[in-house]
Amino acid sequence: MYFHDKRLQYPVRVETPDPLFARQLQQAIGGVEGEIRVCLQYFFQAWGARGPSPKYRDMLLHTATEEIGHIEMLATAVAMNLENAPLTLQESAAEAHPIVNAVLGGERPRHVVEGMLQRHILSTGLAALPANSDGLPFDCSHVYASGNLAADMYANVTAEATGRVLAVRLFHAAKDPGMKDMLSFLIARDTMHQQQWLAAIEELGGAAALPIPNSFDQAQEKQEFSYVFLGSERGGEPPPAGRFTSGPSLDGNGSFSMRQNAPLGQEPMLGPAQPNSGAQIEQISAQV
Amino acid sequence: MYFHDKRLQYPVRVETPDPLFARQLQQAIGGVEGEIRVCLQYFFQAWGARGPSPKYRDMLLHTATEEIGHIEMLATAVAMNLENAPLTLQESAAEAHPIVNAVLGGERPRHVVEGMLQRHILSTGLAALPANSDGLPFDCSHVYASGNLAADMYANVTAEATGRVLAVRLFHAAKDPGMKDMLSFLIARDTMHQQQWLAAIEELGGAAALPIPNSFDQAQEKQEFSYVFLGSERGGEPPPAGRFTSGPSLDGNGSFSMRQNAPLGQEPMLGPAQPNSGAQIEQISAQV
Amino acid sequence: MYFHDKRLQYPVRVETPDPLFARQLQQAIGGVEGEIRVCLQYFFQAWGARGPSPKYRDMLLHTATEEIGHIEMLATAVAMNLENAPLTLQESAAEAHPIVNAVLGGERPRHVVEGMLQRHILSTGLAALPANSDGLPFDCSHVYASGNLAADMYANVTAEATGRVLAVRLFHAAKDPGMKDMLSFLIARDTMHQQQWLAAIEELGGAAALPIPNSFDQAQEKQEFSYVFLGSERGGEPPPAGRFTSGPSLDGNGSFSMRQNAPLGQEPMLGPAQPNSGAQIEQISAQV
Amino acid sequence: MYFHDKRLQYPVRVETPDPLFARQLQQAIGGVEGEIRVCLQYFFQAWGARGPSPKYRDMLLHTATEEIGHIEMLATAVAMNLENAPLTLQESAAEAHPIVNAVLGGERPRHVVEGMLQRHILSTGLAALPANSDGLPFDCSHVYASGNLAADMYANVTAEATGRVLAVRLFHAAKDPGMKDMLSFLIARDTMHQQQWLAAIEELGGAAALPIPNSFDQAQEKQEFSYVFLGSERGGEPPPAGRFTSGPSLDGNGSFSMRQNAPLGQEPMLGPAQPNSGAQIEQISAQV
Amino acid sequence: MYFHDKRLQYPVRVETPDPLFARQLQQAIGGVEGEIRVCLQYFFQAWGARGPSPKYRDMLLHTATEEIGHIEMLATAVAMNLENAPLTLQESAAEAHPIVNAVLGGERPRHVVEGMLQRHILSTGLAALPANSDGLPFDCSHVYASGNLAADMYANVTAEATGRVLAVRLFHAAKDPGMKDMLSFLIARDTMHQQQWLAAIEELGGAAALPIPNSFDQAQEKQEFSYVFLGSERGGEPPPAGRFTSGPSLDGNGSFSMRQNAPLGQEPMLGPAQPNSGAQIEQISAQV
Amino acid sequence: MYFHDKRLQYPVRVETPDPLFARQLQQAIGGVEGEIRVCLQYFFQAWGARGPSPKYRDMLLHTATEEIGHIEMLATAVAMNLENAPLTLQESAAEAHPIVNAVLGGERPRHVVEGMLQRHILSTGLAALPANSDGLPFDCSHVYASGNLAADMYANVTAEATGRVLAVRLFHAAKDPGMKDMLSFLIARDTMHQQQWLAAIEELGGAAALPIPNSFDQAQEKQEFSYVFLGSERGGEPPPAGRFTSGPSLDGNGSFSMRQNAPLGQEPMLGPAQPNSGAQIEQISAQV
Repeated sequence: MYFHDKRLQYPVRVETPDPLFARQLQQAIGGVEGEIRVCLQYFFQAWGARGPSPKYRDMLLHTATEEIGHIEMLATAVAMNLENAPLTLQESAAEAHPIVNAVLGGERPRHVVEGMLQRHILSTGLAALPANSDGLPFDCSHVYASGNLAADMYANVTAEATGRVLAVRLFHAAKDPGMKDMLSFLIARDTMHQQQWLAAIEELGGAAALPIPNSFDQAQEKQEFSYVFLGSERGGEPPPAGRFTSGPSLDGNGSFSMRQNAPLGQEPMLGPAQPNSGAQIEQISAQV
Repeated sequence: MYFHDKRLQYPVRVETPDPLFARQLQQAIGGVEGEIRVCLQYFFQAWGARGPSPKYRDMLLHTATEEIGHIEMLATAVAMNLENAPLTLQESAAEAHPIVNAVLGGERPRHVVEGMLQRHILSTGLAALPANSDGLPFDCSHVYASGNLAADMYANVTAEATGRVLAVRLFHAAKDPGMKDMLSFLIARDTMHQQQWLAAIEELGGAAALPIPNSFDQAQEKQEFSYVFLGSERGGEPPPAGRFTSGPSLDGNGSFSMRQNAPLGQEPMLGPAQPNSGAQIEQISAQV
Repeated sequence: MYFHDKRLQYPVRVETPDPLFARQLQQAIGGVEGEIRVCLQYFFQAWGARGPSPKYRDMLLHTATEEIGHIEMLATAVAMNLENAPLTLQESAAEAHPIVNAVLGGERPRHVVEGMLQRHILSTGLAALPANSDGLPFDCSHVYASGNLAADMYANVTAEATGRVLAVRLFHAAKDPGMKDMLSFLIARDTMHQQQWLAAIEELGGAAALPIPNSFDQAQEKQEFSYVFLGSERGGEPPPAGRFTSGPSLDGNGSFSMRQNAPLGQEPMLGPAQPNSGAQIEQISAQV
Repeated sequence: MYFHDKRLQYPVRVETPDPLFARQLQQAIGGVEGEIRVCLQYFFQAWGARGPSPKYRDMLLHTATEEIGHIEMLATAVAMNLENAPLTLQESAAEAHPIVNAVLGGERPRHVVEGMLQRHILSTGLAALPANSDGLPFDCSHVYASGNLAADMYANVTAEATGRVLAVRLFHAAKDPGMKDMLSFLIARDTMHQQQWLAAIEELGGAAALPIPNSFDQAQEKQEFSYVFLGSERGGEPPPAGRFTSGPSLDGNGSFSMRQNAPLGQEPMLGPAQPNSGAQIEQISAQV
Repeated sequence: MYFHDKRLQYPVRVETPDPLFARQLQQAIGGVEGEIRVCLQYFFQAWGARGPSPKYRDMLLHTATEEIGHIEMLATAVAMNLENAPLTLQESAAEAHPIVNAVLGGERPRHVVEGMLQRHILSTGLAALPANSDGLPFDCSHVYASGNLAADMYANVTAEATGRVLAVRLFHAAKDPGMKDMLSFLIARDTMHQQQWLAAIEELGGAAALPIPNSFDQAQEKQEFSYVFLGSERGGEPPPAGRFTSGPSLDGNGSFSMRQNAPLGQEPMLGPAQPNSGAQIEQISAQV
Repeated sequence: MYFHDKRLQYPVRVETPDPLFARQLQQAIGGVEGEIRVCLQYFFQAWGARGPSPKYRDMLLHTATEEIGHIEMLATAVAMNLENAPLTLQESAAEAHPIVNAVLGGERPRHVVEGMLQRHILSTGLAALPANSDGLPFDCSHVYASGNLAADMYANVTAEATGRVLAVRLFHAAKDPGMKDMLSFLIARDTMHQQQWLAAIEELGGAAALPIPNSFDQAQEKQEFSYVFLGSERGGEPPPAGRFTSGPSLDGNGSFSMRQNAPLGQEPMLGPAQPNSGAQIEQISAQV
């Protein structure tokens, strides 16, 4: 179960509110690279953890709980960047508007509004929403919790890698020193979280954890195709040589090779449509 | 650009059609662990590849192109498992129905229909659809192509790890020898693809590629927080010790430590609602 | 604006409620082939109609308004098929349950529940919902209203063609005479609506309406490619000969021919990643 | 920021795992009436709270934090109901399977599998997922945080009212005493949360908070239409008389009356399509 | 069943078309606070109404039917605001463009285009679409029809409260007198509809309708937790005192109190992963 | 199975990158009128084709394969239009930025950023994504493959008609000669594809293929309603006369007529809510 402290994990300051930056920050809240995703992903992985010990459930709970606080920081930052944003398209409001005049260089309000997420004005009253920077709500199909611990750790590395790429992009896009400071903290946490899931993979055996799942007897797979790069260039031009075309595989179970792809299967012939199946007459009376 | 051969990459045979297995196979077509996802993911990574050389664009094109053929194999397998599936709930059809009597042990047709994806009957005329095993259409927000090559390679490892977990589950669920054979091939290809993206990560520098992105000057992140596991247990109980709480970090740039999480930030106080912002009067007249 | 009569357009009777058929009927309400879709599609086409005269706006309003009544009939039919459906998994309820004993042949309630849309029990209190037969809510991206009248008429033919295919499938799946009667009416209306949009295409010029849009000067398209079937078989095997490979085109503006597809374009070479773009170092320092 | 205790808020016990009940419980996790929704809704309302005082932000944080623990309880309950669920369709596994034989009365495994959410087998390894009982992932467009405190409180009452309806339905569907006990706790919490938001509405002024938003000068609305029930029956049959057709309005600002709806506006005539707008020629050359 | 009159319920006039305002109006069509939602919500509530009498079905039909006319008014308003909107990014068109020059103060067309919903240009031919102001299509999961009449009435109050908040925001954002007039009518109707659903709640018993559902015997809920506010602040700081922490509950069945939240449940321990479940070996061989 | 050539089907050249045009091109990639849709639609139609001969499977494979190359061309065009797009809102970058100064006439970078799809900056590193021009990801519910060949051919005509309308709009919006050239090629291909599916309809019998499905015995539909236009104007004003109100139907099976719509059905009366169904007491105790 869970508890809160009404203070933030790290200070959030905005000297110069910028409604367009509020929009960009939404990607870190509700984007697929964002914090709602990692928060729920770590929680669902924890809540469904089966074996090898309570250790990974526990570790996941610690970090999932931290992530709620990151969503909170970003949602606060969005609201602070929307303070006093213009609510109207009307030209007459131009001179009087503090954001528009003092901060954004005297732009007409409608120019500021044009760049905003419209729902920041119309749906939230100048606050964050659980959506990305183009207004798409987060949907929980992005919560990866596969029941395979190694697969989940790689999913977590991916989430934190794309998350840190996003945070770096926001850092460079930001102008406000408070925002840069907040992002420098979040980038550091993404560094740690990347490292932490990679450390868990090492602990789970590194190469011995491969191929994922490592519980499937490889004698049951068509091993002739397990370590061969299949080239699909129509004239047979080989793929570029690389670590993946020769040498030992990373799981230590085979050697990479390269081969041109070619059809081994048949031309598929499905049966005719059934009577009463809603097809055209000709499909039903077809001879196979 | 692209070309086709009307034969399949590998044979697809179904001795005993099973409409419920057809439903399960849909997960490998339109699920987030499925083949439409990896196919489009590798294509969009290829089409947007910037630096370091055309090598990765080329490699991605080879494998993306192979994956179209995997969707094709699975879609064919779904249609073959739906051959002669019952189209009606009516009891009177019970005796005459070949699938129901000969194969599924004389079940009443409505029992077979109950376990089916209804859209296999109502929308496709007994063929595959680009949706998962519970009928959710694939949506392209799952196509990860971040513009960062290392992040993308980890995304690909994740996709092939969850993909192989799924294929293994389907292999165990399958009864038909043709289906087991097809899945043994797809599992082998997932083995290779997992290995291949891991090989690319090694080629991109392995630890030197970390933290992702490696182009951000770590002096600009709050390094005090870059390698510390923050414990969030409310009584201060530490997280379980592990590879991620002490010892060198995997990027070689720091050492793991552990610390209890605590608020460093303020209690946030947003400004009152603006006049004309659609809030209640009391929110507008509030003093900050 | 709109008015109602509380009676239905056509009688809806259910002698023997069947919760699984209730589920299947959902496809005709909230599926992409269903009535919410055509209703909203015709309304949005009407409300956005520009030229050539108010005629098409008017015609669309008549039929859109009729379609509300079709959703109503189907929603009523779903609720009537759910009358007295089991609400529990408990075995003890088996004997007493009227649907389970009298109608479905004494099945255990959990078998009936297994085949139901769970939201019919949990979310609606045994009534219809605006979703398809596998529980996917209708989403309005399926409302086609392109601003081009001829394109919209073809979209409408498509909607009524897939809609009639669905209605026919439901007719064959149905056992209850009341349901068969209702569906025989809806099938007849789908017949008319198919014909009606085809008649509108004829009225818009038939072949003279092609290619859509017919307002684009074809001299501005690469006419060398306007009437040629491009074959993409890798070995150059031609596509099957047909009406589409030779003879006059249907718009009367050209003649069909056939040619093997081949690359006319370059191998794309994007520039390196920008500094501060979140890419890996190697991508940024790449030479083009 | 946030903290956790690894124990649950309330005990979760399952004596007899039931995979179909696991599926039904998903509605309380990822359904629109479920716990992810209220959790995120209260958090986003708190994080965006503007005026009249920190009080409502604080209150919302307490309850939002409690709700994380409810998702956790339900996710745990789903996993416990999936313990030892069948993973295969194969008949041969029938005798040996503990769930199938001992608990579900000797059903064939495929019957149990038919009623399951397929992703419980294929995607999560027998654990919960953030989706509803028909497999639809939760999407955050359902998080209502409007910036108007009174509107939000009504949204919260609605969420807890539909949530308690759902919990009651699950209570009746449940057979296992542990599950009934857990649900009796969650129903009690829903009772409190319903009451709590209603209490907040009373505190915000009750009738004085109406109409929402109460900051809009009603002199600016067309007051002739503010308290009149418009009847839309085509023959003019009036709506049933009720509290909403006569007597004082609930905001104390008017009196209810009833009137037949009738067109006050024009027949809309949009301009012709612009040249180069992709319309048909006839639409472009139309005379208005 | 349904009928139409081709005139609008209320006049829609636009003196000065504004493509950005057209975008904002979309929120009132296809946003979750918009008119498609209430229209379909009232219809599905009516079509599934069970007890206590036909009264509520009838009332709902009247208002649902009125709402179709509101979508129509707004869709017309969007199209009228898009009259003569620029279709091109080309600078050369700048001087000649009537909207750009006369109305928007001589902006370059690309500035106008930047603020538009791109699908207004590319997909609809300058007409409305059933999507919100950021382009997200309406999806019918937002149609609440729970089978519980009191819950539904609260859902309707919520819809009309957020709907009126939105309409007020649009009123303030609007500049055109015709648009302000139309919105003043829609705001008045939202006033009535709010009042009407609140009146229905009163008619259903007011406090006696609580807690929703009032058909569940409260002796079966854990009443110890039914009227207590649980505080989740980690240090035990109590929530702010309010109407919801002491005094009689609003259903008259209890008294509010306050207590610190604490774990009553266990640390969950799920069983190890099953063989053949796709987990890692270590998860399968784990001891519980 | 499939093969590739790393060259493009047709040259893609961009002289003057324009990030707003990159956004508009997204509609042709991931919009419902776009190339991902037709590509997957033709593939799924091919892979599920049943009768009358392998001909249509083959034809569909040729064109589906061509369409992959169209997605590739457009994705390349998006990336080329994003070359050197601004990544920051900062004013200080204004002078130095090549796109901003040389190409877009010296606009401030934030103006350029305002018009961009934010995910082009934040999520893809200046490359295409499988989403539309307002950022909505493509979802595969738009892939129509009904199992009825004639219905599918009409769906394909619709897709290519709306696709060509879109391409024409993009052609007019484009300024860059390379982009105009690319679009003139894609428009030509859309011309052919429209013609090709219409040719297939002719080959399938033209009028003889109607009504779709033509395998349903029309004696089983309520033929009284099969060819009559039902007018729904409340006062009985007839619909505008047209090809669809009199004369022979297009399938040759009837004659069009016109009639005023009127209720033939009952006022629906559902049963009261079941005990334990979560309804209000009054709904449960209602008399039917």
